[in-house]
Amino acid sequence: MNNTNIIDPLSVDPVVFGFEDDQLKVLLLKREEHKNQDLWAIPGGFIKYDEDIDKAAERILEERTGVNVFMKQLGAFGAVDRFPERRVITIAYYALVKPGNYQLTLEKGDCDIQWVNVYDLPDLLFDHKKIIEHALRSLRIRIRIEPIGFNLLPTAFPLLALQRLYEAILNTTFDKSNFRRKILKMGILEESNKKQEGVAHRSARLFHFNKEKYGEMIKKGFNFEM
Amino acid sequence: MNNTNIIDPLSVDPVVFGFEDDQLKVLLLKREEHKNQDLWAIPGGFIKYDEDIDKAAERILEERTGVNVFMKQLGAFGAVDRFPERRVITIAYYALVKPGNYQLTLEKGDCDIQWVNVYDLPDLLFDHKKIIEHALRSLRIRIRIEPIGFNLLPTAFPLLALQRLYEAILNTTFDKSNFRRKILKMGILEESNKKQEGVAHRSARLFHFNKEKYGEMIKKGFNFEM
Repeated sequence: MNNTNIIDPLSVDPVVFGFEDDQLKVLLLKREEHKNQDLWAIPGGFIKYDEDIDKAAERILEERTGVNVFMKQLGAFGAVDRFPERRVITIAYYALVKPGNYQLTLEKGDCDIQWVNVYDLPDLLFDHKKIIEHALRSLRIRIRIEPIGFNLLPTAFPLLALQRLYEAILNTTFDKSNFRRKILKMGILEESNKKQEGVAHRSARLFHFNKEKYGEMIKKGFNFEM
Repeated sequence: MNNTNIIDPLSVDPVVFGFEDDQLKVLLLKREEHKNQDLWAIPGGFIKYDEDIDKAAERILEERTGVNVFMKQLGAFGAVDRFPERRVITIAYYALVKPGNYQLTLEKGDCDIQWVNVYDLPDLLFDHKKIIEHALRSLRIRIRIEPIGFNLLPTAFPLLALQRLYEAILNTTFDKSNFRRKILKMGILEESNKKQEGVAHRSARLFHFNKEKYGEMIKKGFNFEM
């Protein structure tokens, strides 16, 4: 153990998804030692002895990227050979954010940071590709039962904006009227009396998310059927 | 570290739910040191250095209880003070089984093992109550999107048997015709041409689970709306 303040065999790996320009991206770092290679990594690190694991994930993410966000735990990855030379088990976390809300920063030891299209990943360190794939799978399950990403949209938004978010996460395209029917069936959107402004094409009706109805639906159970 | 073969700050905790007599139960152990107290524990243990974490969960469960079952990872529990004296982070797993399928055994150091009603838990060690509650929450989410527990029923079963399973997991009661309508809407059950035999009351139609349709539904997304 080099540093007695950290729990040596235990790391955290925060997977931060970003939705931007109708694309689903993921925040990746490049370490100094891989400067001239196309080899990237999730911005992970080691847990301190006196630190809750959830707090460790948030601290490490912020230290290495400047992004401060609440994350959901994905789970532990603990194959015997996942880390080189010694045994390190990692606890992965994930979040979905709007990249434009954050100013990225770099810590010493890292030389590059990028929002990378999740469907066009470069080579990744260790089992980081597997971790990102698991996080994406979990995001896709959650988007069926929770209004994931509604916080990325403005308070009132046209349904097409939401459709683009669902399409990016599920890596698919929906028929506009089908999507409209399915998403309204979830029962958590309300039509506002506002219309889109300043658009060249025919302005669309705006919707907003109803938190109260969402609370009821969570108890009752709801689903976005693809 | 007393034993260099184990990863000292990392344990696994397997939560095994059992469905029996229309009740949802959980498998708990009592340690020798708590012989005269009503203090129980999840049958956990420490991961070996040369062992995948999933394998560790299965090995430890089998060693301490005799139960051999594939488990799903629930996640890591890592509050700073969850374990007394030193820092131990645990990775919890869970499964749902039919208690009658297993012969329980006890390892040295444990003095009692029981299937305990999950809605009437005794005092539990550490954060084990919280872990069981999380596992139950996860089971309830999964039962909405996957046919959990169908493997606990015979190949052909009356809908009422399935209703009892859902009621036990969700800790509720359903109206018989509502449940019938909702469960059939999932689209993964098929009516067989068999009826219940050897029952005193009017014999019910038997159903079976269609794995092929389930495969299609998994892709399409499905939901049991409560």
